[in-house]
Amino acid sequence: MIEQLIKELGYDLDGAPAPLAEYIPAVQADKLVFTAGQIPIEKGTLKYLGKVGCDVSIEEGKKAAELCAINGLRVIRNLIGDLNKIERVVKVTVFVNSADEFTDQPKVANGASELLFKIFGEKGRHVRSAVGVNELPINAAVEVEMIIQLKD
Amino acid sequence: MIEQLIKELGYDLDGAPAPLAEYIPAVQADKLVFTAGQIPIEKGTLKYLGKVGCDVSIEEGKKAAELCAINGLRVIRNLIGDLNKIERVVKVTVFVNSADEFTDQPKVANGASELLFKIFGEKGRHVRSAVGVNELPINAAVEVEMIIQLKD
Amino acid sequence: MIEQLIKELGYDLDGAPAPLAEYIPAVQADKLVFTAGQIPIEKGTLKYLGKVGCDVSIEEGKKAAELCAINGLRVIRNLIGDLNKIERVVKVTVFVNSADEFTDQPKVANGASELLFKIFGEKGRHVRSAVGVNELPINAAVEVEMIIQLKD
Repeated sequence: MIEQLIKELGYDLDGAPAPLAEYIPAVQADKLVFTAGQIPIEKGTLKYLGKVGCDVSIEEGKKAAELCAINGLRVIRNLIGDLNKIERVVKVTVFVNSADEFTDQPKVANGASELLFKIFGEKGRHVRSAVGVNELPINAAVEVEMIIQLKD
Repeated sequence: MIEQLIKELGYDLDGAPAPLAEYIPAVQADKLVFTAGQIPIEKGTLKYLGKVGCDVSIEEGKKAAELCAINGLRVIRNLIGDLNKIERVVKVTVFVNSADEFTDQPKVANGASELLFKIFGEKGRHVRSAVGVNELPINAAVEVEMIIQLKD
Repeated sequence: MIEQLIKELGYDLDGAPAPLAEYIPAVQADKLVFTAGQIPIEKGTLKYLGKVGCDVSIEEGKKAAELCAINGLRVIRNLIGDLNKIERVVKVTVFVNSADEFTDQPKVANGASELLFKIFGEKGRHVRSAVGVNELPINAAVEVEMIIQLKD
């Protein structure tokens, strides 16, 4: 059912991005699953790059955060097999590659948060930190990491 | 008793700030409670804004971090009902909106850490990361997120 | 055995760095151990300082991240007594003090990740976020925090 919802939102769970380096994309520790920082890659191509507030608009930044969240779900699905095992989304951290004086990180981060709410309903509501940074890996516009809790 | 201590320090637990966007302020996962990133808002007004080391002094930045920590306790109290349920403060992450060449993030972060030690004693001692960033939401001077552990 | 491996890699577990301020270096919450943010200090001296991509090369940044990871293991060992109690490394977050337009944070962060894999093998594989920031405490080139899971 969750996969169906994700399709209706225009995404699928195929094509989890490979890590950029010597780490793995998701790890389970007891009932928590942590993802690596996800960047807005689709089919091997970085789709949103540069600084939000200058190279990238807020609206594009929001789409970038949404794609990062989907990539988070992709790597979680590959680890646990089925997103219906998720009890709730616990935490989302959104690092926004920010132009000088750009302070709308929360609007950008909403791209991830609103998507998770659409997909999981109340179980998708999470705590969140949105933070501006001056540079991100391979010039990604946004990087998102997630913690989810599995059902007992 | 903890609420009494907090009053003696000049704060109260009313007025937990509303999230800036589509997320919730605190989430429990087993015995851990995670807060959203807290900024130095009091009664709906951002009290410390701009970059520490230029717009904001270290001393003001420290007060900002203190207020963020109080806001963290406010949202935790609203979730769990009573701060006496806290077994210990586990982790505090302090993002400091930093002017170029400002490298005293630990002094700023001490505003949060010292307050938590005053309130909780040994149970208030936590691990901490203090990090400088170039921009924060709505130009906040500091953003603080917390993880606490509940008693069994 | 793990301590032997660490020695063969040119490090030892003595000399865990003291916190820069009012916090503690490692905390256990159930089966998870969280470290404070570690900077590349050796015997009380900050060995790598300034911005990667300008003051510090990628190769030096990688060594800095490696030293931060060793410092993380040092503070964990001091808390739990024996690194053989580690079930796995769960998460590593690497903040890289980044020059403008420096976007090779993953290469820097590999200094930590590759070391952990050498020491712990498959148990050392973790999720990771690598993030660029404009300033770090006392001008450290890199700051690394870790979460590990203990055996039952």
